[in-house]
Amino acid sequence: MALALKEKGFAMRVIGVDANAEHCKQALELGLVDEIATLEAAIPQSDLIILAVPVGVCLQLLPTVMGLITSKQVVMDVGSTKAGIAEVVADAALRGRMVPTHPMWGTEYSGPAAAVKEAFVKKATVICDKEKCDADALALVEKVYGVLGMHIVYMNAVAHDVHVAYISHISHITSFALANTVLEKEKEEDAIFELASGGFESTVRLAKSNPAMWVPIFRQNRDNVLDVLNEHIAQLRKFKACLEKENYEYLQELIENANKIRKVLNRG
Amino acid sequence: MALALKEKGFAMRVIGVDANAEHCKQALELGLVDEIATLEAAIPQSDLIILAVPVGVCLQLLPTVMGLITSKQVVMDVGSTKAGIAEVVADAALRGRMVPTHPMWGTEYSGPAAAVKEAFVKKATVICDKEKCDADALALVEKVYGVLGMHIVYMNAVAHDVHVAYISHISHITSFALANTVLEKEKEEDAIFELASGGFESTVRLAKSNPAMWVPIFRQNRDNVLDVLNEHIAQLRKFKACLEKENYEYLQELIENANKIRKVLNRG
Repeated sequence: MALALKEKGFAMRVIGVDANAEHCKQALELGLVDEIATLEAAIPQSDLIILAVPVGVCLQLLPTVMGLITSKQVVMDVGSTKAGIAEVVADAALRGRMVPTHPMWGTEYSGPAAAVKEAFVKKATVICDKEKCDADALALVEKVYGVLGMHIVYMNAVAHDVHVAYISHISHITSFALANTVLEKEKEEDAIFELASGGFESTVRLAKSNPAMWVPIFRQNRDNVLDVLNEHIAQLRKFKACLEKENYEYLQELIENANKIRKVLNRG
Repeated sequence: MALALKEKGFAMRVIGVDANAEHCKQALELGLVDEIATLEAAIPQSDLIILAVPVGVCLQLLPTVMGLITSKQVVMDVGSTKAGIAEVVADAALRGRMVPTHPMWGTEYSGPAAAVKEAFVKKATVICDKEKCDADALALVEKVYGVLGMHIVYMNAVAHDVHVAYISHISHITSFALANTVLEKEKEEDAIFELASGGFESTVRLAKSNPAMWVPIFRQNRDNVLDVLNEHIAQLRKFKACLEKENYEYLQELIENANKIRKVLNRG
């Protein structure tokens, strides 16, 4: 974000705040930020404060940040869960200055070195509970996403968390579990390496994702994730039952039904 | 394969045989084949017969093909299971002319229009039970894969089927089941479409795969697939238990373990 907002001339000066000294150094070297400061020093100098931290840290930071800003400043977060974040600012005196968002783009990598130019272009971003935001704060955040080339979807924080459980969180659990399955069963690493084809690599790619980011997401979206995970296990059991009972007609039906995902994915 | 083998000057003439008249027409139009013939007419004119059909059809076709060839001709198949195929030719008079192979490349699409130039370059291919093949037959097939730019891994047919259950077949079941989960639970198709990001798309891509190809694969590799599927369900249940019991330390461990797949995937 910092890369793109600087390049497009939207951000004149970017101040980086990070608990990790090595990441601060990298961010400076990579030109992601112009300077490094503490949170307390950075906030009074900033028009817009972007919180891009694991969602658990975001919950802890938000009360502090909301206490440090004035009614002229704007705060946005970019975390993958929204209901908890909406709740923690619900009673803040300056609630209207905070815009909860979720740009739907990421890779399995994290840290400053994982920054990718043009990353967000043509992807979707979610803005939650816009009616609770001051008009000028909302307009600034909308402008940020416009500059990044994203299209904006509006929904309430609770609905957001339900949808991302289906669309993002369960994919990650599946991928982590698939990696563990293969690592558990396939002791011959050479065989994995030599035979792993594109299909395997694409299903298991997300299994490289950072636990520091994902444990807090699963924790905050626990109920929705459990709900989808139960359904997913039930679906896998249908495949298992087909094979056990050698019911290949039903197996065919299950796959034909899965093929319907095409219609959804190819609509764009 | 036909595209690449013609372009490299390896195949002077390619005769296509297909049960589907529309696919025959497409293959001619796309220049994949030079002419179309029946199996009985095509075989006597061919130096090399490549069987690229669903693995169930391959089992049925092989006895016929093995009965039609002479000891100067070579047969290879490119199916995703190998033990059943090895078995069906085990007692053939001309067993040595048949080379069972599995080039590890494919997409979720099928039919002539799914052909991709340079598809196999730098990917792995498996040749099974090479000690059962005549030296000149093996040499010809090795040359084919050399021309395609693939590197060859040798293993016996039974070991092949165990490994592909881990590395390819389970990824497909996971993807089909994930698509069914999302289609079942997420009735708001607009939300899937708007929010589906790269992570979802990559885990669910294989769910577009053709049941005509995959039902016979799962059927022929049933025991191995069931074994891995049981392990995968057990792994998913660990994630479920972590969330139910709010054991986030163990959830962290499960994800850290899954991250080890990096080491295997990045070795290349």
